[in-house]
Amino acid sequence: MSHQENLTYYVAQFVDELVRSGIKDVVISPGSRSTPLSLTFAEHTSIRHWVNLDERSAAFFALGMAKEQKRPVALVCTSGTATANYYPAIIEAFYSRVPLVVLTADRPHELRDVGAPQAIDQIKMYGDYVKWFHEMALPDKSEAMLNYARSMASRAVSTAHQGNPGPVQLNFPLREPLVPDFSLPNIWESSTKDVYLPYFSGKRTLYENKLKMILSQLKDGKQGLLVCGPQTDIRFRESIAQLADKWNIPVLADPLSQLRTGRHSKELIIEGYDTILKSEKVRKQLKPDFIIRFGAMPVSKPYRFFIEENPHMLHFVVEAYEGFREPTLKNTQYIYSDPVEFCTQSVQQSSSIEMDPDWTDKWVKMNDMIKHKWIEGDELTEGHTVSIINQVYQDNHLLFVGNSMPIRDVDTFFTTIDREGLILGNRGANGIDGTVSSAVGAAAHGKKVTLLLGDLTFFHDLNGLHIAKQYGIDLTIVLINNNGGGIFSFLPQAKESSNHFEVLFGTPLDLEFNHVITMYGGHHEKVESLEQLKESLNHAYQDGGLQVLEVQTDRRENVEWHRKQWDHIEKHALDILGES
Amino acid sequence: MSHQENLTYYVAQFVDELVRSGIKDVVISPGSRSTPLSLTFAEHTSIRHWVNLDERSAAFFALGMAKEQKRPVALVCTSGTATANYYPAIIEAFYSRVPLVVLTADRPHELRDVGAPQAIDQIKMYGDYVKWFHEMALPDKSEAMLNYARSMASRAVSTAHQGNPGPVQLNFPLREPLVPDFSLPNIWESSTKDVYLPYFSGKRTLYENKLKMILSQLKDGKQGLLVCGPQTDIRFRESIAQLADKWNIPVLADPLSQLRTGRHSKELIIEGYDTILKSEKVRKQLKPDFIIRFGAMPVSKPYRFFIEENPHMLHFVVEAYEGFREPTLKNTQYIYSDPVEFCTQSVQQSSSIEMDPDWTDKWVKMNDMIKHKWIEGDELTEGHTVSIINQVYQDNHLLFVGNSMPIRDVDTFFTTIDREGLILGNRGANGIDGTVSSAVGAAAHGKKVTLLLGDLTFFHDLNGLHIAKQYGIDLTIVLINNNGGGIFSFLPQAKESSNHFEVLFGTPLDLEFNHVITMYGGHHEKVESLEQLKESLNHAYQDGGLQVLEVQTDRRENVEWHRKQWDHIEKHALDILGES
Repeated sequence: MSHQENLTYYVAQFVDELVRSGIKDVVISPGSRSTPLSLTFAEHTSIRHWVNLDERSAAFFALGMAKEQKRPVALVCTSGTATANYYPAIIEAFYSRVPLVVLTADRPHELRDVGAPQAIDQIKMYGDYVKWFHEMALPDKSEAMLNYARSMASRAVSTAHQGNPGPVQLNFPLREPLVPDFSLPNIWESSTKDVYLPYFSGKRTLYENKLKMILSQLKDGKQGLLVCGPQTDIRFRESIAQLADKWNIPVLADPLSQLRTGRHSKELIIEGYDTILKSEKVRKQLKPDFIIRFGAMPVSKPYRFFIEENPHMLHFVVEAYEGFREPTLKNTQYIYSDPVEFCTQSVQQSSSIEMDPDWTDKWVKMNDMIKHKWIEGDELTEGHTVSIINQVYQDNHLLFVGNSMPIRDVDTFFTTIDREGLILGNRGANGIDGTVSSAVGAAAHGKKVTLLLGDLTFFHDLNGLHIAKQYGIDLTIVLINNNGGGIFSFLPQAKESSNHFEVLFGTPLDLEFNHVITMYGGHHEKVESLEQLKESLNHAYQDGGLQVLEVQTDRRENVEWHRKQWDHIEKHALDILGES
Repeated sequence: MSHQENLTYYVAQFVDELVRSGIKDVVISPGSRSTPLSLTFAEHTSIRHWVNLDERSAAFFALGMAKEQKRPVALVCTSGTATANYYPAIIEAFYSRVPLVVLTADRPHELRDVGAPQAIDQIKMYGDYVKWFHEMALPDKSEAMLNYARSMASRAVSTAHQGNPGPVQLNFPLREPLVPDFSLPNIWESSTKDVYLPYFSGKRTLYENKLKMILSQLKDGKQGLLVCGPQTDIRFRESIAQLADKWNIPVLADPLSQLRTGRHSKELIIEGYDTILKSEKVRKQLKPDFIIRFGAMPVSKPYRFFIEENPHMLHFVVEAYEGFREPTLKNTQYIYSDPVEFCTQSVQQSSSIEMDPDWTDKWVKMNDMIKHKWIEGDELTEGHTVSIINQVYQDNHLLFVGNSMPIRDVDTFFTTIDREGLILGNRGANGIDGTVSSAVGAAAHGKKVTLLLGDLTFFHDLNGLHIAKQYGIDLTIVLINNNGGGIFSFLPQAKESSNHFEVLFGTPLDLEFNHVITMYGGHHEKVESLEQLKESLNHAYQDGGLQVLEVQTDRRENVEWHRKQWDHIEKHALDILGES
């Protein structure tokens, strides 16, 4: 058997099995060593390939796509530091539980550790950040090895997807010559009719006695809360709304909980909880008996204080499979169950649980008050910007939110709406890297995506705009340009490091982004009023393409405005709590 | 003792010791968790801090600076994926032996693995790519712990620098509040007068009997070669020139060997060896008895074939400390000795070694012929571009060369000149990532740097231009824009994958770079003739700032031109060898 036959059949069988196992998209970064994989993906008729030259951007693009499509996306790159550029997105995928199948081409064993060009040690190079690493065998078309190739492909997809999803890496030693021969017969033909390793996966459901052990602890609690942090399962909306209704219990909903959009009942959804809990005086009036949290830890910092200040309440965290995501270290009861299942079971089994109407009422009233008091006037603040995005949000839109200030602004100002749609962000490791690429990835399959982000985050990933241009992907970017790191103005560093503040934390970029937006074929507009923002957003959605609406704000004014508003709200909240 | 006192003294002692141990530059990427380190570096009066917002770019910037300055540079970033963006440059630094002291801020232990924001597992996150990893203790101002802080700082610098240099990582768990109090007394005061761990490092020198064992093997060899691959020690120029002169032996000199510039004798330097060895017919006429190689493996691929086709010759590799950099796997005698020392000893001890004058003559004649025949006419080819850079190269210039085609073009067309200066590139892992940032880093201390690179490499690291703008660093970029990956047109992929070639390998960017260059405050010019290139280069050096001269070429024409020239040269070379 010739080298080329071994190569062709082995890689074709592998790629075909990836496709059969559910991979519909592969993001390829060009290179020579990866030629067998790239060409075979390009040759396969049932997978879409995307080419992205910057591997850092490519991996975040795949991450955004996998998040939006809710299925694993494959990545291919050549050997050497190309692979290392994937690292930030792999870490984000690991913590935010996004399935990625990372395929790294490598030099064969005889070219490793001997100073060969572009050869680095790729074995386990992502450490514990992949759910599974496997060093593939050299290409070999014996029947046993073709079954092995199919088996590993099937396992890679299944492992990335199952349980808590995450990235997996397969490393391919490949010898020259690297070009397969697609004229060989039956290269895609499988030894099995169906997927090589089909799977049937159960969901975790509590035994009835375990459920009773939980619910019996709640029946005396009249001041309970449901909390929902970042998660992407929209089946969850109805189930938590039903449980909330049944118990008459407030639901604190993180902006990434997917509870702020959708057709479910929102009467008990408290999206203003970050603002409510900001005030220490208010927190003192709100002593919960128990909290049941779904999803990851919410973005809200005051919520963390709230947990820490209530050491005696009962605390439950629901995880679909496994995990210990509770940074306050409060003693916590872990419920390992499908969250939808847990809600449904609880609705059926908990006739005696009901909150004190006054407790729930106060939360709802404070929340209503905030919705009316926060956004007053017609200044173009960072808060008002989010509010306009909220107003123009249409069915099946997707809002992608940058880290640092934007996610906090969305937490505060993006109120519940009945339109369907998702709100996504990279909250696994909360980096400002890769945000543009992630949003472009989320938009790649045609969803109308609005990306809200700050100027530093935009700068960090300008390369992400190239793939939007290349594939004509529609993306509307609302760029909050406060010329630097706005979040630091809220931190102690702002006061206590005054002589180094601007250089080390403020970090003004002093860039006119219109140039680079033009280079990537985008339309750029500086927005000066709320009215203009609204109109321009609507035009942007209509026109498609890459649209960047830039809102210029001032970091100092922004802090002052926020502080003034918080004081204002605190008074009203204490009024509602009867404590003014 | 207060938390702030512990923090302030501990970090100040650490930073001060880094400075005393020889760190003069630190590259800081902004963040909150890293505040104690950033502020303390900014407060120290004897270290220069550079702020770079994109950590990938920051690490390559530090790498370029460390390469040019020949001393370790420190890096500081915050916790989370910020750290992962360092990975490509750390791998490059490891393989190209560049000292970096990487300081990663981390959440304290109680915020790890519990879903806390921006907390990832940073323990040994760079795997085997750092020479040393150490998890620092929490800040503590007890005498013992301040000595510990100084000791670790001193060790970090020493370890990065000693033996084969490379990166080291210290990971700092840091608790809030994070702002030190610089008004505390005597925070910089050391318990020792000098550096905490001073060192006196010997160089490897061969015992006389070992040297004799080597030289005695050479005395019958009349057709020997010295080969010098990438290395940065300019002390080496004189010593190898003396050895070559003594033995009358040709020296094949890689473009990054530092032998093509400088005041040493160049009579026996064969910079055209890649072109000579390209022809199989020529290689058949050149059968070496022995090769002694210094530095890493040269970039030349024909040189690798040459080694493989001469299994019976003696093969020696000189390494200053340790290493096995011989990708052909030819059986090799390793000489672990300071290369300068080895040359000097050999000159003294080798009265009986002398090459056949005819052998040396042929190499010199072929080399001269190539210098005259390659660059004919006045087309603006990629080759002519290098030739012009070569002509205008002034004393103390530095040429930084991108990977893929530019390094190969420089290998072929950058002939020896008597001006002092360095030629650098990232040849540890040969990535196209981080090249702009590395060149800006090499230029940061005022050296006149010309960066030659292709459009894909330029695109990959456009963010690197920001720090040039921010600090007003002079950099002249010669951008070869052939709208895609030129190197692939030379590979089998070009012929054998025609229907996917442009999408997967050619990868045209279709970008007008003038926009982004304007955004970064640079001057951009499209160059259309050799004369214009020459003039514009001279203007660029005079004017300073960021200057981008863009040479547009055609990938297909470029291949044809190269092939035509190789054929032409082959004929002349065979003539010289008496084989036409």
